[in-house]
Amino acid sequence: MELVFATHNKNKLIEIKALLPSHIKLLSLDDIGCTEEIPETADTIDGNAILKAEYVRHRYGYDCFADDTGLEVEALAGAPGVYSARYAGDDKDPKENVKKLLKQMKGKENRNARFKTVIALNLKDNENLFTGICKGRITTEERGENGFGYDPVFQPKGHQRTFAEMDLSEKSELSHRGKAFRALISYLSK
Amino acid sequence: MELVFATHNKNKLIEIKALLPSHIKLLSLDDIGCTEEIPETADTIDGNAILKAEYVRHRYGYDCFADDTGLEVEALAGAPGVYSARYAGDDKDPKENVKKLLKQMKGKENRNARFKTVIALNLKDNENLFTGICKGRITTEERGENGFGYDPVFQPKGHQRTFAEMDLSEKSELSHRGKAFRALISYLSK
Repeated sequence: MELVFATHNKNKLIEIKALLPSHIKLLSLDDIGCTEEIPETADTIDGNAILKAEYVRHRYGYDCFADDTGLEVEALAGAPGVYSARYAGDDKDPKENVKKLLKQMKGKENRNARFKTVIALNLKDNENLFTGICKGRITTEERGENGFGYDPVFQPKGHQRTFAEMDLSEKSELSHRGKAFRALISYLSK
Repeated sequence: MELVFATHNKNKLIEIKALLPSHIKLLSLDDIGCTEEIPETADTIDGNAILKAEYVRHRYGYDCFADDTGLEVEALAGAPGVYSARYAGDDKDPKENVKKLLKQMKGKENRNARFKTVIALNLKDNENLFTGICKGRITTEERGENGFGYDPVFQPKGHQRTFAEMDLSEKSELSHRGKAFRALISYLSK
């Protein structure tokens, strides 16, 4: 079967392709002639993943899946959440986002947060969501050079290091994204 | 491995037990000495499933999963949603809920709705959610005798009959609940 991963990111595609069973031919947006950015206008993480998958389904007619990720901080009533990538503005600068988060969290005792990745799988209008959750804490300063986004200030539960202090394989084992994709892959491999 | 299904409903347990691989020993709440009703006080369907699974994890220490289901109607801004079971009041009378829904929908042109089942799986504080979505329409009157809850007024997309006019195996193939549980079972069988 052909299955579209609603991303323009070649690295993301290659990473998932290697994990899928051989009967699935994974296509990128570019492979199906979709060169535009898909709008992400929903007000929840679930909603954005669903929106992107439905966009591909309705405009291009393919079975597909799409992902969205956000960081939900307890003391900030779930912010930045669906706005994680553009918390400090529409230029989506990860450094500015982290700076804003640390500022908002200044003096807060409750540092609890969770990362959430939602994958919406759309097979002939049948929809399943696969959600991976990673609980942790927001540190008081940045630590580590690996990863991206909020990784330098997110310390997963039961660990002393931030995501940015871990190598990719260790992070992937623990992470929201790893959990969501492993669930998707189990489902597609059945 | 031992795994608790956070339900007091013996039929639900038996149904899922038959589908799980043999290395999983499925336990009910009664099997672990939990006789109380677990509070469902979250304001989202996801939240209630997570809450129930965390309750079992924190009070009893078991790996577990919990489910929650709701009907989201477009013209009612997603209501009854997390309040589906008690839409017409705390006595959770399905007939009264359906009656209220039909009343609220009177004269509405947009009949689009979706059923959503969320299963929260909690394995040593690792959390995954498995969500099954079934799109459809709210009929203008009740049809059929099978199923339960809103089944007599929910007509799944691409079908002419309501869930209450289908037999259990046909409904299970299409339904939100079937989709969510098949995803969970794929994951646990890997």
